[in-house]
Amino acid sequence: MKGNVIVGQSGGPTAVINSSLAGVIKAAWSLGAGKVYGMHHGIEGFLKEDLIDIADYITDPSDLSLLKRTPSAFLGSCRYKLPPIEGNEEVYDKMFAIMDKYDIEYFLYIGGNDSMDTIKMLSDYASAHDKKQKFMGVPKTIDNDLPLTDHTPGYGSAAKYIATSMKEIIRDNESFGASKPTICIVEIMGRHAGWLTAASALSKDADCDGPDLIYLPEVTFDVNKFMAKVKELAAVKSSVVIAVSEGVKVADGRFVCELGASNDYVDAFGHKQLSGCASYLANLVTAETGLKSRAIEFSTLQRCATHMASRIDIDEAYNVGYVACQAAMNGETGQMIIIQIRSREPYMVDYNRYDIHEIANVERKVPKDWIINDGTYVSQKYLDYAHPLIIGNILPYYASGLPKHLTLKNKKKH
Amino acid sequence: MKGNVIVGQSGGPTAVINSSLAGVIKAAWSLGAGKVYGMHHGIEGFLKEDLIDIADYITDPSDLSLLKRTPSAFLGSCRYKLPPIEGNEEVYDKMFAIMDKYDIEYFLYIGGNDSMDTIKMLSDYASAHDKKQKFMGVPKTIDNDLPLTDHTPGYGSAAKYIATSMKEIIRDNESFGASKPTICIVEIMGRHAGWLTAASALSKDADCDGPDLIYLPEVTFDVNKFMAKVKELAAVKSSVVIAVSEGVKVADGRFVCELGASNDYVDAFGHKQLSGCASYLANLVTAETGLKSRAIEFSTLQRCATHMASRIDIDEAYNVGYVACQAAMNGETGQMIIIQIRSREPYMVDYNRYDIHEIANVERKVPKDWIINDGTYVSQKYLDYAHPLIIGNILPYYASGLPKHLTLKNKKKH
Repeated sequence: MKGNVIVGQSGGPTAVINSSLAGVIKAAWSLGAGKVYGMHHGIEGFLKEDLIDIADYITDPSDLSLLKRTPSAFLGSCRYKLPPIEGNEEVYDKMFAIMDKYDIEYFLYIGGNDSMDTIKMLSDYASAHDKKQKFMGVPKTIDNDLPLTDHTPGYGSAAKYIATSMKEIIRDNESFGASKPTICIVEIMGRHAGWLTAASALSKDADCDGPDLIYLPEVTFDVNKFMAKVKELAAVKSSVVIAVSEGVKVADGRFVCELGASNDYVDAFGHKQLSGCASYLANLVTAETGLKSRAIEFSTLQRCATHMASRIDIDEAYNVGYVACQAAMNGETGQMIIIQIRSREPYMVDYNRYDIHEIANVERKVPKDWIINDGTYVSQKYLDYAHPLIIGNILPYYASGLPKHLTLKNKKKH
Repeated sequence: MKGNVIVGQSGGPTAVINSSLAGVIKAAWSLGAGKVYGMHHGIEGFLKEDLIDIADYITDPSDLSLLKRTPSAFLGSCRYKLPPIEGNEEVYDKMFAIMDKYDIEYFLYIGGNDSMDTIKMLSDYASAHDKKQKFMGVPKTIDNDLPLTDHTPGYGSAAKYIATSMKEIIRDNESFGASKPTICIVEIMGRHAGWLTAASALSKDADCDGPDLIYLPEVTFDVNKFMAKVKELAAVKSSVVIAVSEGVKVADGRFVCELGASNDYVDAFGHKQLSGCASYLANLVTAETGLKSRAIEFSTLQRCATHMASRIDIDEAYNVGYVACQAAMNGETGQMIIIQIRSREPYMVDYNRYDIHEIANVERKVPKDWIINDGTYVSQKYLDYAHPLIIGNILPYYASGLPKHLTLKNKKKH
């Protein structure tokens, strides 16, 4: 019997973060690990010794299937940054003492940039102090901004939600035609990287024009140029739909959403909560043109809509969880699983590992040469890249007309 | 051969308004009508003689199936109010001249309150002037505020979207737990009637707490009482999710959304565009409590998300379209199709007709005795009423990972 496994979920949840959890659990059980513990609310819960014995909650294979169909973090998430090792050795000593107490040998953490930093610190500490524990990162973020991996589990499903909803919004917006032209501005997540906003372009097809303009945070936003484009479009089109990232900034460095009402909330990582950019621009459009405008924010819907998760994404999320656990049990440590493309068409991938030091705290943005039309659209290269990631569906389990979910609350056996 | 049929779509689109259109078309073809014309953008297009020969667009049975899976108004919609007959006879003379020109005998109009007024005026004019044309209304509105029918096609799918998304939002909102409590306020459509907001309660189940508070426009909103409730909940819960109608008003008659930033857009019917109520309340919560808050608006997503239409709703929408056309061809006029409940459990309905004069311009609200907990929740009576309406799914036709739609633009044959 091998040692025990612990797994945690961290950062903003996604539609498929629980599939990665399911992959870790399945690997641990298939490959002969001991107990599988879950951190209740990530590293923050771990520090309080708030651990869950997964066997109390996942009792048969149908539970794993339902877990894959459950949005948000089944174990609970956190946004908690470990302090630097130097000067905080007692925090690390405590963590390793907890691992020893529970015979934990394999430590899996599912998360994005900030979470990979946790894996880096713990694996650095372990190698400096000759600890036996192995640490592996499982990539997760709708933002798709982790480096070295072709893409990140969670992105495909968010992209599918964004493209589908964008198509439905465009359909709706064009219904009134020329007698009532509406400028609809859709705000999409992605603080510094425009991957999610770019996904709105996937809605363009034989039966849909796609958004008219797409503004990514990679390009400095110019309010005057924006207004000129809107007026140009409004003169020839009865329905104008614009996708804009929550993170677009004007030349002086301010976020567009800061040009309007103030919003001072800052999270534990010092991130400002961004929201209101579409609303600000829609008000501006109406004030300057008299045209009807509408602001739509996908908000958390774009990260929790498991009811339309991408099949490719949910399978890859499961697989990165599985191979991360497998690698840890094979003695690997201080790495994150990456997805590598063997072939874009037909779509085939390989799973590999990469040194966590090259990944933690590095943000990958949309390549500049994928952004076209004077910073107002994305190129065919982006579409070729993203299209395979939204293919296929996985249907929820329905009861009483609604998707069923697995939760800690309704599953605990004793 | 019977005379020709014309059909139009009016008002805010829904996820299933095209199913009613499909029902009208199928009835016309099955029951031996002549040509079937579509009004391009409703009565407004009709007045411009902007008509479509449906046979140019719907050329085989698979087109009707795809039409049922297409959100928004396939024919284009409008918000256009006919003037009073007295003093405007020339408008009506013109309309009947167009009908005569195209040999139109059966006039079907799919819409809500304002659209039923159009059927009333036209049928009144026809009977006063001994015209042969028959006029039937096909009920459609996500707002569910038409009288005499048990419910309105479009409502079930919107309710399913709201309940599903609410469940996913609650799942997301609870992921961070006690270390980062968030007050999430979700704004839902429904200007004067709370049917849509009430649907958020359908998310409550063994695996979901449902929203903590539900505020309908039927009850005067008290900001102080609201804040007291939020503080009470925040003291004991780490995740608080509140559903609020866009149409809630304070005691002096102002909409809550008017207490914040101003928004002066008024549509053709004199309706003010409501939006920003959740955002206003979320800012207030953070200002008064220091807690993190988040505002989410479903906006037009709740009326165009055909990808998760309710099977019951889509079938009923088709059926009301079919029987409306059938009734007109049987000589009925000046009526709207209503849905009557034969049995709530098991769920069985009858389709009947009702005098349009009792329907046009009448709004049906949520019964006062279905609103409980000092105006902050809906009762089991509401749940028993609404549950059957969200049952079952109809899957989109997918291609390249996205739902396919039928559009005038991509279907025209010649």
